[in-house]
Amino acid sequence: MLTANKVLLKFLAAPINPSDINQIQGVYPLRPDFSKPQQSEHGATAGNEGLAEVVDVGPSTDQRFGLQCGDWVLPVVPCFGTWRTHAVVEADHVIKIPRLPSLTVLQAATLAVNPCTAYRMLRDFVQLEKGDYIIQNAANSAVGQYVIQMAKAWGYRTVNVVRSRPQFEVLAQQLKDLGADIVVQDSELSKAETKDMVASLEAPIKLGLNAVGGRATAALSRHLADGATLVTYGGMGREPVTLSTSAFVFQSLHAAGFWVSRWYSEHPVDDRVAMWRQVIEMYDRKQMSLPQLATVTWRRSTPLAELREKVLDAVDPPDSRPGQAKKVLLFEG
Amino acid sequence: MLTANKVLLKFLAAPINPSDINQIQGVYPLRPDFSKPQQSEHGATAGNEGLAEVVDVGPSTDQRFGLQCGDWVLPVVPCFGTWRTHAVVEADHVIKIPRLPSLTVLQAATLAVNPCTAYRMLRDFVQLEKGDYIIQNAANSAVGQYVIQMAKAWGYRTVNVVRSRPQFEVLAQQLKDLGADIVVQDSELSKAETKDMVASLEAPIKLGLNAVGGRATAALSRHLADGATLVTYGGMGREPVTLSTSAFVFQSLHAAGFWVSRWYSEHPVDDRVAMWRQVIEMYDRKQMSLPQLATVTWRRSTPLAELREKVLDAVDPPDSRPGQAKKVLLFEG
Repeated sequence: MLTANKVLLKFLAAPINPSDINQIQGVYPLRPDFSKPQQSEHGATAGNEGLAEVVDVGPSTDQRFGLQCGDWVLPVVPCFGTWRTHAVVEADHVIKIPRLPSLTVLQAATLAVNPCTAYRMLRDFVQLEKGDYIIQNAANSAVGQYVIQMAKAWGYRTVNVVRSRPQFEVLAQQLKDLGADIVVQDSELSKAETKDMVASLEAPIKLGLNAVGGRATAALSRHLADGATLVTYGGMGREPVTLSTSAFVFQSLHAAGFWVSRWYSEHPVDDRVAMWRQVIEMYDRKQMSLPQLATVTWRRSTPLAELREKVLDAVDPPDSRPGQAKKVLLFEG
Repeated sequence: MLTANKVLLKFLAAPINPSDINQIQGVYPLRPDFSKPQQSEHGATAGNEGLAEVVDVGPSTDQRFGLQCGDWVLPVVPCFGTWRTHAVVEADHVIKIPRLPSLTVLQAATLAVNPCTAYRMLRDFVQLEKGDYIIQNAANSAVGQYVIQMAKAWGYRTVNVVRSRPQFEVLAQQLKDLGADIVVQDSELSKAETKDMVASLEAPIKLGLNAVGGRATAALSRHLADGATLVTYGGMGREPVTLSTSAFVFQSLHAAGFWVSRWYSEHPVDDRVAMWRQVIEMYDRKQMSLPQLATVTWRRSTPLAELREKVLDAVDPPDSRPGQAKKVLLFEG
């Protein structure tokens, strides 16, 4: 029996983000509060992102939460613990998302982190005009693919850097099919032809997005226009961000960082719902498609040993390399 | 005979800045325009900073320049060529400075670059409140000493990093006499005691100033508060600026650069005169003193061989190490 202002959730799907693995490893700045009695006894449930359906609402739950059975909701508190089939939580710990008829479970379950990271990085750092270029590395990561698609939808153009590989042309074509204007291998980034190509672009590159670090970031930054901003949102290369002194002094480079969890903690709920609605509408208008996902289905009928193996495989090794499909736990039945 | 809107200048003193040496070496972004006929024939005169006295004014020179014989002026165009005894220039290539009775030739000659770099870095990047801390490396450089003194005058507090040395306590006391609150050797910067000391400060460190680069900058940045700004204005360590990915992502570090030449090119002359007046008033009120300077006196009577040797010694090796006295050419007689 639920009490007032509690809701019963049934999870439909929960992504496994690299940050979830880092959190379990104890190297992520957000961690569950183990001082709460129920958590010190039972540990904490992992997972920070996920889609749940409201399946029961406590009596006299405050109408301002506006929750009804059948609503799709996302967590609005950090360290929610989404890797579970059901949860009873405070009504204000989740928020209802706009459920357009075309919206899929996987689109909704992966809404809060990757597309919103791309969205904010394109919106919040530089005043871009239609036709302006941005440059990004890790362009075939999930965030990278959202950047390509949103930039295209909003009239910006993209220079996309990927790691060198034998099948480069295949990948380049895939990214161009998403809307990429230019795709470059990182080994080509410092070559004279690439510099000439960038110098001949019709518009300056005012924004750089970095999820790699090390020399790759320095090489990317050299293509930025005077006064441009470089936003770091990840460090897949496990090396620090290295930028030249002269870029700062003589080219007025600005370097900043983006962390979607901080954005959520610093902005009112209405702002996130407005952003989510825009992303959902972009899916609905076919301006955007999901990056490749690998699903791990979690059925009531799945034998425990099999389920255990599938989940362990999904979380280890961490999915932190660009181009690897993001994994999503899918709860069925 | 001067023509209209020309003035004859007699230089009184001209500093030798590291950037002048870099300009001669051809590795500085600003360089003289060698396409002008008189420069392609005779080369260009070096020197970008200096103080001149107006000794003649062309007939019917436009009154809006407001120049009279006896005025002290500074160049307002880049690549002016200040290492010379006299010059005939357009009246709008110089600007008169407020000449308070206490103002010395050396204070005026070194006004445009070092104190104004300190001034702008303290004013333009972060909204500092009285009592706030800033942290800087190269704290005993000329700019570093101005930062200490201006911060003190404006009510901010400073954590000052200098390179480790045997006579550290002597240097630390000198900087404290200027107004430094805390002085730390770079070898101590990453130690637990330093972290504890910074953590116990009454106010956050919102601004970092970097003129070194490499690991020293990363170590400095770890003491910055969440959301702080790190401004790079030099690279004495000849290594790039290396900052951790997590500082950008999780601590919202902002990194930017400052170049006083750009500031001058982007701001109206009135703004620089207002700034110069404030700096001159700080000297007048004894809130600020000149860093140690080494003068090279250039007299009409000095034998050519002796003068040549003194000047070559002054420009080679470049004075780019912190703590070395800045050299100023002093024109006498």
